[in-house]
Amino acid sequence: MKIKLNCNFENLSENYLFSEIGKRVRAYSEKHPEKKIVRLGIGDVTLPLPAPCVSAFENAAKEMGSKDTFRGYPPEYGYDFLRTRISEHYASFGVDIPADDIFVSDGAKSDCGNIVDILGDNTVYMPDPVYPVYMDSNIMSGREVRLLEANAQNGFLPMPGEECGRGVYYLCSPNNPTGAAYSEKQLKEWVDFALKSGSLIIYDAAYEAFVSDGSPRSVYAVDGAKECAVEICSFSKTAGFTGTRCGYTVVPAELDADGVKLKKLWSRRQATKFNGVSYPVQRAAEAAYSEEGMKACLDNIGYYMENAKMIASLLDEKGIKYTGGKNSPYIWLECPNGTSSWEFFDYLLEKVQVVGTPGAGFGKCGEGYFRLTSFGSHEDTAEAVERLRGLL
Amino acid sequence: MKIKLNCNFENLSENYLFSEIGKRVRAYSEKHPEKKIVRLGIGDVTLPLPAPCVSAFENAAKEMGSKDTFRGYPPEYGYDFLRTRISEHYASFGVDIPADDIFVSDGAKSDCGNIVDILGDNTVYMPDPVYPVYMDSNIMSGREVRLLEANAQNGFLPMPGEECGRGVYYLCSPNNPTGAAYSEKQLKEWVDFALKSGSLIIYDAAYEAFVSDGSPRSVYAVDGAKECAVEICSFSKTAGFTGTRCGYTVVPAELDADGVKLKKLWSRRQATKFNGVSYPVQRAAEAAYSEEGMKACLDNIGYYMENAKMIASLLDEKGIKYTGGKNSPYIWLECPNGTSSWEFFDYLLEKVQVVGTPGAGFGKCGEGYFRLTSFGSHEDTAEAVERLRGLL
Repeated sequence: MKIKLNCNFENLSENYLFSEIGKRVRAYSEKHPEKKIVRLGIGDVTLPLPAPCVSAFENAAKEMGSKDTFRGYPPEYGYDFLRTRISEHYASFGVDIPADDIFVSDGAKSDCGNIVDILGDNTVYMPDPVYPVYMDSNIMSGREVRLLEANAQNGFLPMPGEECGRGVYYLCSPNNPTGAAYSEKQLKEWVDFALKSGSLIIYDAAYEAFVSDGSPRSVYAVDGAKECAVEICSFSKTAGFTGTRCGYTVVPAELDADGVKLKKLWSRRQATKFNGVSYPVQRAAEAAYSEEGMKACLDNIGYYMENAKMIASLLDEKGIKYTGGKNSPYIWLECPNGTSSWEFFDYLLEKVQVVGTPGAGFGKCGEGYFRLTSFGSHEDTAEAVERLRGLL
Repeated sequence: MKIKLNCNFENLSENYLFSEIGKRVRAYSEKHPEKKIVRLGIGDVTLPLPAPCVSAFENAAKEMGSKDTFRGYPPEYGYDFLRTRISEHYASFGVDIPADDIFVSDGAKSDCGNIVDILGDNTVYMPDPVYPVYMDSNIMSGREVRLLEANAQNGFLPMPGEECGRGVYYLCSPNNPTGAAYSEKQLKEWVDFALKSGSLIIYDAAYEAFVSDGSPRSVYAVDGAKECAVEICSFSKTAGFTGTRCGYTVVPAELDADGVKLKKLWSRRQATKFNGVSYPVQRAAEAAYSEEGMKACLDNIGYYMENAKMIASLLDEKGIKYTGGKNSPYIWLECPNGTSSWEFFDYLLEKVQVVGTPGAGFGKCGEGYFRLTSFGSHEDTAEAVERLRGLL
């Protein structure tokens, strides 16, 4: 064939992070088949879907099998029953988002990737280390990406500075991979900067349910955010929907760029290139907001946070610096004694068979850091902590 | 805000087709509340999901509620159990597609819209009348679109001609909205043209299950297609998945443009901007391929085709020219006496309260045509046919 392909794909760097981890773990296991490996690198939930979600999921599947209750094409922006619940969820922590500004999707990753469709050629800013989807989706569309260093000095929370011009800013709080969460005061500074500079914030709130210290759970907790921010969120980590697939994006009616409403563009994008979320999935998501559903979600988050506490206590005990583990399932630690991310990875694998994620895999500024997650079982986490206690 | 938006959105024309239909039907109903309206304009299935799909759907939802059977992030390209079944489905009509070339998605509309992500700035060709997603997704990405007339002279199946240069060609067979299906000989001509000119065919096979006369059910029924065609397909019309959401795209490993594999680009696109399909949905789709599932799917298609026959018989009886209704749930008829699409719409609504879709809504060449669909019930279809028999 002689047609032109999207040549921006040539500028993508191959991300070998998880395949390289897999390779090293397999190589170790083959040499030492008797050793039990404990994984604290998992970025995926492990607890089952809350029971109310499962019942709703099953019931809705059953409805699809009967002529009277069968549902065809879903509304492209989500069923009202779910959009209303999400709106109420925002109201529960004091944020007013009309259901009509909420666009239900098959997940935050899709929305993070697809949002570039409605944007023009702006300079794009994002933190380093970073969730690779922000970076790669922008490279694919030929955008210029500038990195904002997230480091120990700024508590892994970059703030607007001299290097920041008008553009599109990706903020993720609580952050993946560092676990750091912006305070209201810090978010206010970002919103003020965006309003002043005419910038757009794309705010990834996928981990909002883990916030425990009163930090904002939404960018819209800050006045003015509706004039400068889109928010992307997910049921993946809140309700264990990583395998069920449901998320949503808020595009406030207020948001416009030189008189053009972003909501109008996103509506058109979704109506053209998306056909809505499976009806039973939307019923399952709705059930996460029931009283029983909310309790089950909070119990699961509580379970993970117990794991985080175990890990954090060990690090405190050993005097190892870290962030996260409080408002986040992630713990981002400084590799002891100045070792590199991969050296530390190999050290833990060889010595105590504990697997984490080398920070360098998330960007240059991740070098010298290491991510542990709390998505394992209590038993595995306790086992890993005991082993690390003996080693570090 | 002062950021740049995607200015190509300004070139989209508002498609008021279905909202205009709704408006006219509502206005009529308000004036004549006693009249029963019969809809033959529905592009959505109405029969419930096949029982084996429902059981599999429910069982998989139940699995998500138990720690031992819970599934987290699905593989981005689909579970092997489903990709293998799709590959076997192709084999069942003599087409060899390895499971690894099949990418499972949340539906054909998403894939049709997203495929532009991997393409560069080519001239894009598509038939007129046309499924609006091809048009709008290309306008959004700033591509030059050229239309190939589908008309009575070419049996609503445009063929390669002098106006055709190297580019990207959208073919849909059996066609939405005209119901016409390419023969193997015609497809061979397209494939030969694409190979010779270095063009790419994007083949929409969403209605393949309706093929009844031996016409190709896949572009890959033709030799050489793997070197020039991507195929997009769906469970929506085959297994009634419009509300369940599952589809797939075949990107053959053979397909390359100047040495770059399209499969590599699509793999990267999907891994970056998509996170796989809900596990229970994939289990439901898998069940459509079971012996019992296939039978139920064929029964449903048979039911719709009975409706198509009723409509076709009437048109034959009245000497009204039409295409489709044989390999397709759609019947595309020439409005009698040279009336326009919308005049004919109003005439049927006023006189016999039958609602169809004006062909003009699908493009300039649709003017003077009208689409009826067979997705209603036998009762409604019979009722509509009786009314039309009295009128036409």
